[in-house]
Amino acid sequence: MTFHSDKLRDHACLIVHGPDQPGLVAAVTALITRNKANIVTLDQYSDNPEGGEFFQRVVFHRPELSAAFPEIEADLEKTLSPFGMEWRLTDQSIPKRMAILASTSDHCLLELLWRHRRGELPVTIPMVISNHTRVADDVRSFGIPFFHVPSQGPDKSEAEARILELLKDNVDFVVLARYMQIISEDFLDEVGVPVINIHHSFLPAFIGAAPYRKAKERGVKLIGATSHYVTKDLDEGPIIEQDVARVDHAMSAADLQARGAYVERAVLSRAVQWHAQDRVIRYGNQTIVF
Amino acid sequence: MTFHSDKLRDHACLIVHGPDQPGLVAAVTALITRNKANIVTLDQYSDNPEGGEFFQRVVFHRPELSAAFPEIEADLEKTLSPFGMEWRLTDQSIPKRMAILASTSDHCLLELLWRHRRGELPVTIPMVISNHTRVADDVRSFGIPFFHVPSQGPDKSEAEARILELLKDNVDFVVLARYMQIISEDFLDEVGVPVINIHHSFLPAFIGAAPYRKAKERGVKLIGATSHYVTKDLDEGPIIEQDVARVDHAMSAADLQARGAYVERAVLSRAVQWHAQDRVIRYGNQTIVF
Amino acid sequence: MTFHSDKLRDHACLIVHGPDQPGLVAAVTALITRNKANIVTLDQYSDNPEGGEFFQRVVFHRPELSAAFPEIEADLEKTLSPFGMEWRLTDQSIPKRMAILASTSDHCLLELLWRHRRGELPVTIPMVISNHTRVADDVRSFGIPFFHVPSQGPDKSEAEARILELLKDNVDFVVLARYMQIISEDFLDEVGVPVINIHHSFLPAFIGAAPYRKAKERGVKLIGATSHYVTKDLDEGPIIEQDVARVDHAMSAADLQARGAYVERAVLSRAVQWHAQDRVIRYGNQTIVF
Amino acid sequence: MTFHSDKLRDHACLIVHGPDQPGLVAAVTALITRNKANIVTLDQYSDNPEGGEFFQRVVFHRPELSAAFPEIEADLEKTLSPFGMEWRLTDQSIPKRMAILASTSDHCLLELLWRHRRGELPVTIPMVISNHTRVADDVRSFGIPFFHVPSQGPDKSEAEARILELLKDNVDFVVLARYMQIISEDFLDEVGVPVINIHHSFLPAFIGAAPYRKAKERGVKLIGATSHYVTKDLDEGPIIEQDVARVDHAMSAADLQARGAYVERAVLSRAVQWHAQDRVIRYGNQTIVF
Repeated sequence: MTFHSDKLRDHACLIVHGPDQPGLVAAVTALITRNKANIVTLDQYSDNPEGGEFFQRVVFHRPELSAAFPEIEADLEKTLSPFGMEWRLTDQSIPKRMAILASTSDHCLLELLWRHRRGELPVTIPMVISNHTRVADDVRSFGIPFFHVPSQGPDKSEAEARILELLKDNVDFVVLARYMQIISEDFLDEVGVPVINIHHSFLPAFIGAAPYRKAKERGVKLIGATSHYVTKDLDEGPIIEQDVARVDHAMSAADLQARGAYVERAVLSRAVQWHAQDRVIRYGNQTIVF
Repeated sequence: MTFHSDKLRDHACLIVHGPDQPGLVAAVTALITRNKANIVTLDQYSDNPEGGEFFQRVVFHRPELSAAFPEIEADLEKTLSPFGMEWRLTDQSIPKRMAILASTSDHCLLELLWRHRRGELPVTIPMVISNHTRVADDVRSFGIPFFHVPSQGPDKSEAEARILELLKDNVDFVVLARYMQIISEDFLDEVGVPVINIHHSFLPAFIGAAPYRKAKERGVKLIGATSHYVTKDLDEGPIIEQDVARVDHAMSAADLQARGAYVERAVLSRAVQWHAQDRVIRYGNQTIVF
Repeated sequence: MTFHSDKLRDHACLIVHGPDQPGLVAAVTALITRNKANIVTLDQYSDNPEGGEFFQRVVFHRPELSAAFPEIEADLEKTLSPFGMEWRLTDQSIPKRMAILASTSDHCLLELLWRHRRGELPVTIPMVISNHTRVADDVRSFGIPFFHVPSQGPDKSEAEARILELLKDNVDFVVLARYMQIISEDFLDEVGVPVINIHHSFLPAFIGAAPYRKAKERGVKLIGATSHYVTKDLDEGPIIEQDVARVDHAMSAADLQARGAYVERAVLSRAVQWHAQDRVIRYGNQTIVF
Repeated sequence: MTFHSDKLRDHACLIVHGPDQPGLVAAVTALITRNKANIVTLDQYSDNPEGGEFFQRVVFHRPELSAAFPEIEADLEKTLSPFGMEWRLTDQSIPKRMAILASTSDHCLLELLWRHRRGELPVTIPMVISNHTRVADDVRSFGIPFFHVPSQGPDKSEAEARILELLKDNVDFVVLARYMQIISEDFLDEVGVPVINIHHSFLPAFIGAAPYRKAKERGVKLIGATSHYVTKDLDEGPIIEQDVARVDHAMSAADLQARGAYVERAVLSRAVQWHAQDRVIRYGNQTIVF
């Protein structure tokens, strides 16, 4: 799934979300037709076709999309307001701007940088920020700006302020690629964009610190990783993706951690890709992933 | 995924297939709306949005569906003919009639009977036919009619004629659940309904007889199973589903076969379920599975 | 992996367990040689070769094993006592006697009965006990005795007493195949043989009741099942085997449960097979699985 | 599974292979004991305990291993010759020297370099050779020497001669990390060390060129990758490892290739790791992997 800009030129993604009701799909598809666009993919889900919640993602192709964008938005406003639906229209040829926060581990970070270079993530990466300098050379070898924001001591407010300053108006979402610092509620309030984390366990098992040690102690036969949106409740945000790997009695906690790194980087990469493609819709503490 | 008849009452499944073109989805969804139906699920795929082949599956709910069925069909005819589309409308509350052909192996057969009893396959099973009697008691313990049609000797035409007689007008599709006889071209021409097979290898690897022995000789590290529609070309029909299991050097060909049985029954069951739910569309030698 | 009695004739399984120390493996293998036996498989594990805990499983072939059994036991006693090792020698041609406790769900129960009939579980099944009669006919169709022990009301002591009476001296281990009753500490003390349970979640996630509902609420992307030895701490016993299946937002809690049933029956069957083959060694709250 | 040199100091790996016979394991373990070594891990397999082929891998710890090495070798010679066994003793603290041949694809190459840097591959990498210069900077950023050996035109003999010159006495094995050139029989004769390849299909399916295109045409539901030792018969050498990934009808051949890259790099990395750890024994056209 590579993302050549020419492949995505004149492609828009429409997310519609709200109370399910008859005629909704017909209204949306008629709107697309009368705006001279052609549907490329369409996914939808209703948690109950009789009065439930409705979710839809449509990718359509419209020649000269950017010129027509305001008109389509106006039509959407007019058409969907009576239904009481929320909607969001994005130009797929404009990649989202993604900042990565990392610490000393490189496996999730390098995987994202490499997939990006390979053309598999429809994002730009304006910056990588770390509280250590260990990954600086690697990051810059990909041509990505690196910023070092140290974070010693119990008071993280200065570091967070500095990070917010760097992010401010520069990014569309933030990825915590094994960033081993707890994010404050204030930071979340201020940052104003989605924050995606990778947790090194199969949540809700082994919430909190040192999940691989806990997994070893409990004697599990599989370890996992979970990517989720960050909320104020640590390790409790909406789950985007999870996966597991088989382990056995002969593996130490360090072995579990080494094996787990491969699960973490794969799970985080998929979550980032889906988010960047507007495939993930948050609803309560859950996600719809199209 | 259980199939309570009341859950499927007044539900229809519409399959649309043909040349992709602007306005098609809008036309279909408008048709559904004006026929007072509500879309439950909608899947679609186009192999090229600019002039490719278009495939769509819509499940909709329409109160008093059976009364409205002819009207909706007439509307579909009128609406989709100008687009040059093929379509098929089915009442989901009417289960498909599935015949099973088996030999002596019971693993695929019993899995289908058990999933059916459990309410996970939206089918009726008017008959199981076998060239052996070994599975007769098991079949009848599920309350399913069993017919023994012996098939000795090189000339299978008499056995096939007897089977065709049993199937004639009684079934909507046929499943070969490890039926170890080669089906003739004449049989396929006569039977007039889809025939689904389970092959005990990851096709196209190990085509033909004794795939587990060949897998052992080749020293593969995974074995697989493939469910496909039967065509005149042995082991070459459109693939519906495949899966694999890990094996190692310590396993004999008999061990591979025992392990493989679990893959076979799972793969065949999924293929049968998807076919019964009208999720599988054949196109050339491939399948679209929604 | 089928278990023909002739294939296991004159085969013994030796489990050795205790403090790791130089010369241990040499001592065991020399003992096997001087007792005219030939090693078929040998697995071992030490959690630390310098002063850790040592675990070994050796299957050996010894013509006229039953005649030689007392001699070999005496030699083991003499040889391994100086090392301070625990050991256990079993004649593999004598299948373990397994009782199954079930309630109304049939998926785990039938899978065990069917794998047993197929020759894949080296056990005899002297009885199935259920607090309901729903599975009685199925059980008896496999030629297995069925006993109904009702268990209404809050006081389970009478039912447990009746079950213990049935089990007493008749079984080598007990399997709870979705037996939806909490086992009392007294029962565990009295029963005197290992008890294996299948829990319908990926432990330690969703401990306790209604795990599929909790999984749906948490929005996980995988569901799992865990087979473990039963201890006094509910859902906390040593884990034998775990596995998972992928789910998505469109699945209800009932759908998760239906999907999970396939994971449960596979996980429990593997755990039972491994236990019956003396492949599982308990150590603290963990298992070594060879 | 990281490989700290201090963790492997004074560790030896012994591979024993030949006709199974009583007393063999006892003889080997007694030898290890009398040479003052302690067994760390022991794996063995016999394809038939009565007169079959026997394979064993023992890792043992012997203080001051290098001083004792010649003595242990002499003892092995004396002890195992009467049994007619082949054996090989290696000092695990001496990493194997691995050359990588690559073309323009970087996914397998970078994965190996990164796992090596991470300490997960017990090898040194004296050189990467490519017929293109595209990966040169990446390779050198890992501190690994890069050599460009162009390979235009039908006659590859000059390029192969140049490569052989570079490899000569400098490496213990060669990895073809998506090296898109066919290796001549002469090259294989000359190189004198094992050569490991990654093939971009689940062999024996889609042998030869363009497997992802063929997979798309056949409509398979899983794609795979296979790592194998290179022999004179193209794509027919002993398989070390295989794995698969799920695909669907909506993916183009290019999408299959992109998805497949992740399978390829994982499969090749595992095969390389196991080879480097002396876990793989070739026997006929198969492998025993301990």
